[in-house]
Amino acid sequence: MYEKEMRQCFNLAKKGMGKTSPNPLVGCVILDKNGKQISSGYHKQYGENHAERDALLKITPQQANGGTLIVNLEPCNHYGKTPPCADLIIEYGLKRVVIANKDPNPKAAGGIKKLQEAGIEVISGILENEGTILNRIFFKNITEQKPYIITKIATTIDGKIATKIGDSKWITSENSRKLVKKFRTQYDAILTTSSTIIADNPEMKHKNKIILDRSGKLNYDMKIFQQGKIYVITTSTKNANKNINFINVTEQNNKLDLKQAFEKLYNLGIKSIFIEAGSTLNGEIIKQNLADEIIHFVAPKILNDNDGISCFNGEKQDFIKNTKNYKLIELKQSSPDYYVRYIRL
Amino acid sequence: MYEKEMRQCFNLAKKGMGKTSPNPLVGCVILDKNGKQISSGYHKQYGENHAERDALLKITPQQANGGTLIVNLEPCNHYGKTPPCADLIIEYGLKRVVIANKDPNPKAAGGIKKLQEAGIEVISGILENEGTILNRIFFKNITEQKPYIITKIATTIDGKIATKIGDSKWITSENSRKLVKKFRTQYDAILTTSSTIIADNPEMKHKNKIILDRSGKLNYDMKIFQQGKIYVITTSTKNANKNINFINVTEQNNKLDLKQAFEKLYNLGIKSIFIEAGSTLNGEIIKQNLADEIIHFVAPKILNDNDGISCFNGEKQDFIKNTKNYKLIELKQSSPDYYVRYIRL
Repeated sequence: MYEKEMRQCFNLAKKGMGKTSPNPLVGCVILDKNGKQISSGYHKQYGENHAERDALLKITPQQANGGTLIVNLEPCNHYGKTPPCADLIIEYGLKRVVIANKDPNPKAAGGIKKLQEAGIEVISGILENEGTILNRIFFKNITEQKPYIITKIATTIDGKIATKIGDSKWITSENSRKLVKKFRTQYDAILTTSSTIIADNPEMKHKNKIILDRSGKLNYDMKIFQQGKIYVITTSTKNANKNINFINVTEQNNKLDLKQAFEKLYNLGIKSIFIEAGSTLNGEIIKQNLADEIIHFVAPKILNDNDGISCFNGEKQDFIKNTKNYKLIELKQSSPDYYVRYIRL
Repeated sequence: MYEKEMRQCFNLAKKGMGKTSPNPLVGCVILDKNGKQISSGYHKQYGENHAERDALLKITPQQANGGTLIVNLEPCNHYGKTPPCADLIIEYGLKRVVIANKDPNPKAAGGIKKLQEAGIEVISGILENEGTILNRIFFKNITEQKPYIITKIATTIDGKIATKIGDSKWITSENSRKLVKKFRTQYDAILTTSSTIIADNPEMKHKNKIILDRSGKLNYDMKIFQQGKIYVITTSTKNANKNINFINVTEQNNKLDLKQAFEKLYNLGIKSIFIEAGSTLNGEIIKQNLADEIIHFVAPKILNDNDGISCFNGEKQDFIKNTKNYKLIELKQSSPDYYVRYIRL
């Protein structure tokens, strides 16, 4: 029951991708007392109406009376940028509320209880797994107070990101590179390393850019510094310089302490980080189990040389049983290439 | 026009996969004079009726009269195991024949001409590209007189088939390994190397098994010799031994001459070869542009070690622009893994 409407909520919710952070992605569908769909809505961006309010304000309490509201996240019970959605649902006289996921945020929770106390039937857990995947950034943020980490790689069929002399232009198609630019906009910040910047001098437009520069070898005239807010992760204390903020972290095994960096970034409001780097950083992220998600673009090409550079190189590994395991959640063509999305198991 | 029926022909044709060699895969659909579908059929296995005959014999000439016959390959005009299909189509009084591909086989061709001379309208080229892909084995056989070569690889996300010490059990899931066994049955023979046999002692059930054993290091007690017809490719002349045939080829750069081996196998009736080997042979096959098709299984695992063994290792390559290019034709989950099928560009 209500699976069709819940899928519709997920699709509505996705329209807010990249604009709702730190809020979750939420969609809402309303059926009248005869089961006919009379409204729908979604959370369009941070600061704007929640999905339930967006859908309810398009109809009157007379229309909604005795109806069913389907929403993928438990309606809130707190005064944030807007008053509690639970109150508005009660006011509109709905008789049933259908939910995918409970709100893990202690500040916002309590919606289900309030609705039930007002005599509204609440059905929760509809397509719960899909809902959890949809709001994976939000759930990690709330439950762990850490940013959600996505690592993007683009390889040949044989898993290489470059030849042994470092040539990497271009493995994937223009089509795929355009898609990567779109994916970047869905996350709060992008992250790369000084080595990648020195090798490629990329522009990488984004509102927030994080650069790992342990040894302070970057030249601030490079293209990446011309736009956006920059966070340089380094071991030495420096003063902010125009759009550049320095974040000082300690070292661990002669490497920047990534966990520490991510926590500091989280406290500065960065809730999701899209990493585009080389095999050393990618390998370290995998080794430390820091990647929540991997997006792998594969071009239909074979380098055919074992000495080419692998997409991940972070540890010495003798046994297959010790590989790191992920779960495939999306597999799609990006012609002539394709991409796969995995989440950590 | 007739695209829906042509797709139905392709799907019928596929039911014969692995059983029609050296014949093509053919399906047929018949519409009566009012456009209503009245019969369908396909070529079930070598020696049995062609698709057109299979479909026509289910109905009477009265039913077929004035109708349209859709078939993915030009009807034959020769006496092989069965009389010419073109004659039967004329006899049944059809007014139109719709074809995807013309028959490249000079022995069988001439069907279109004969039909047209009998006053039948022939439309050809409907979904021609899809038809060419469906019968890619047959088309290569006929036009080049060489076997169609498929290379199967099973890797981690980072393109490794084994750790640096050679551990490879298991990268892909039981589910995927079962699917590989099914794929093997679709080709005339499987091919592996003495190194793979010595490393894994696999059983590899198949009616025809080809083993590359340049240095003659194989022990004939190994599991692979217990079943099927075996072709050992070697540089020394030996007499056949029970189920083992020795095929003598010359060397080229200290390697068995693969082209020569494939040609000899073709002349022995092997029209398609499914290769399951290590990175050296796979790399050589790619380097020499001998792989017509690649089937790549990917498990959701990261080895994270640049020193692991890449799926292809056949040449030294400094530039991405020199990679070998393929075209993706299938992308599918084989949970928890997925597989991709490529053909050579």
